[in-house]
Amino acid sequence: MRLRDVTLRDGLQDTAPIGLDAKLSIFDSLLAAGVADFEVTSFARPDRVPALADAEAFATEAISRNGAAVLWGLVLNARGAQRALSCGIQNVQFVLSISEAHNANNAGRSVDESLAELADIVTIARDGAADLEVTLATAFGCPYDGPVDPDAVVGVAKRVSDLGVRRISLADTIGTAIPDEVESLVARVRDEFAFYELGVHLHDTRGLAIANALAAMRAGATRLDGTVGGLGGCPFAPGASGNLVLEDLVHVLEASGVDTGIDLPLLIEASALTCDITGHAQASHVAVARPRFERRFESSVSAGNEMAPHVVG
Amino acid sequence: MRLRDVTLRDGLQDTAPIGLDAKLSIFDSLLAAGVADFEVTSFARPDRVPALADAEAFATEAISRNGAAVLWGLVLNARGAQRALSCGIQNVQFVLSISEAHNANNAGRSVDESLAELADIVTIARDGAADLEVTLATAFGCPYDGPVDPDAVVGVAKRVSDLGVRRISLADTIGTAIPDEVESLVARVRDEFAFYELGVHLHDTRGLAIANALAAMRAGATRLDGTVGGLGGCPFAPGASGNLVLEDLVHVLEASGVDTGIDLPLLIEASALTCDITGHAQASHVAVARPRFERRFESSVSAGNEMAPHVVG
Repeated sequence: MRLRDVTLRDGLQDTAPIGLDAKLSIFDSLLAAGVADFEVTSFARPDRVPALADAEAFATEAISRNGAAVLWGLVLNARGAQRALSCGIQNVQFVLSISEAHNANNAGRSVDESLAELADIVTIARDGAADLEVTLATAFGCPYDGPVDPDAVVGVAKRVSDLGVRRISLADTIGTAIPDEVESLVARVRDEFAFYELGVHLHDTRGLAIANALAAMRAGATRLDGTVGGLGGCPFAPGASGNLVLEDLVHVLEASGVDTGIDLPLLIEASALTCDITGHAQASHVAVARPRFERRFESSVSAGNEMAPHVVG
Repeated sequence: MRLRDVTLRDGLQDTAPIGLDAKLSIFDSLLAAGVADFEVTSFARPDRVPALADAEAFATEAISRNGAAVLWGLVLNARGAQRALSCGIQNVQFVLSISEAHNANNAGRSVDESLAELADIVTIARDGAADLEVTLATAFGCPYDGPVDPDAVVGVAKRVSDLGVRRISLADTIGTAIPDEVESLVARVRDEFAFYELGVHLHDTRGLAIANALAAMRAGATRLDGTVGGLGGCPFAPGASGNLVLEDLVHVLEASGVDTGIDLPLLIEASALTCDITGHAQASHVAVARPRFERRFESSVSAGNEMAPHVVG
């Protein structure tokens, strides 16, 4: 299963700026753990997303020290796509929301206007020989409008597909999805369209990110996003508890016999470093409890001993 | 789906004693939320489990104020079963571990000795017209011996079934199970035996309790255990992060169209009360973020507004 680390974009976008060197040390630690797919930054308005105001500088540095990893730059409009390509980004990720209210808040335009912008970006990406992915935000729920109709998601996916885009991602932007919904929507998009890549982006707001990720995998998703330490959160959803925890996902996938290409102990080190740098609370269970069976305890009693200390269910 | 609250036993057993009235206020709040199945206490050695030293007093009070809920008393030996029945408990839950090392530490005897004890308890329960459940601890992993062979679990389940026991529970005592293993083992036990009830008891040590619970349900489990706030932990597993969070499970089940008979907002109130009384950190995502779609936010911009503040994936 391909896993994309989104720590450097979704994980950091709502934090206080940490500086280029700190970002690069996080990036290096993730590369060392074998992460091969990154969302490195967002080419948004620097005054509006100060944590990512160094988009060009960071992308340039990341490209220069990166071997084979795929580096995605998030864009909301044609100007962002041009900025991404100008500094060497070859993987452009365009975000539009299914719900009008969220698209207005997030992108400052209607869904139709975003789709018109996408048509321009398709041309820009083609001219720049860049890969283009479209992320459908609020595919499972909107902070303003509430539940989102799966038919609306499929309708937008069709318009995206009709524009010649071959990579799509379904985002549970505010962490309202449940496994049945994820499985059903991923299966529909898989069956009705011919995308090369069908990613799923999850938040752990209600503790369902891992269950949703496994549901997405069952339904045929080809890539899952996450951040180390569960970094991130949603500026429009108070109480949101961050992104899917990447090391917890790697833990369950590897234990299930699914190869991720990632070294779990090194990823846990990257997570600790990232929480240290950002001051973010560690949301990973595996980083705290360690991978299952890594450590065995010494038995303190033997059979027949009357002093068995506890009742453990 | 039947859900059993184990806050008052597994949730409290490792805490400082909180007193009878405090326990009763937790019990009352859970009853008010519609919880209909409880593990109320453990009839263990009072000097070894001081938090549950009031087993008789609490069980008596709980029975006296309870209407229709099922109240389970956990026992480790025949003497415990006699104590439970003496104070009116009609649902006796006997725990033995699959792994010898854990059974020695937990029950002070070998697995064979525990099974011999079980034969006596079967008679005691029959004579007392009580229902008897057997919980198989360390069914997915042992803190001392590591991985546990599913064949060993099935072998013990057969000996339990052969003794005429008709209710069984599989416990992931230290939170090492993954969904594939839960689904596979529950399906095997379901297919190979004729238990009336096939429960699954999960800990969230590695963030997989909810995913494991959904896997258990897919495979035919008839009951799941949990604690409000994720209360509890395992005295033999440092870093363990408590039981499956009951309110988070109710949230996903109800959203999935699975009736639990439990009122989620009232359960969240019970959780807050319980964390308040015990000082336990709130481990529930839903208690913090609130149920999905409960609240909608006011849109701050409209389409066409250039000031869209953020990029949210």
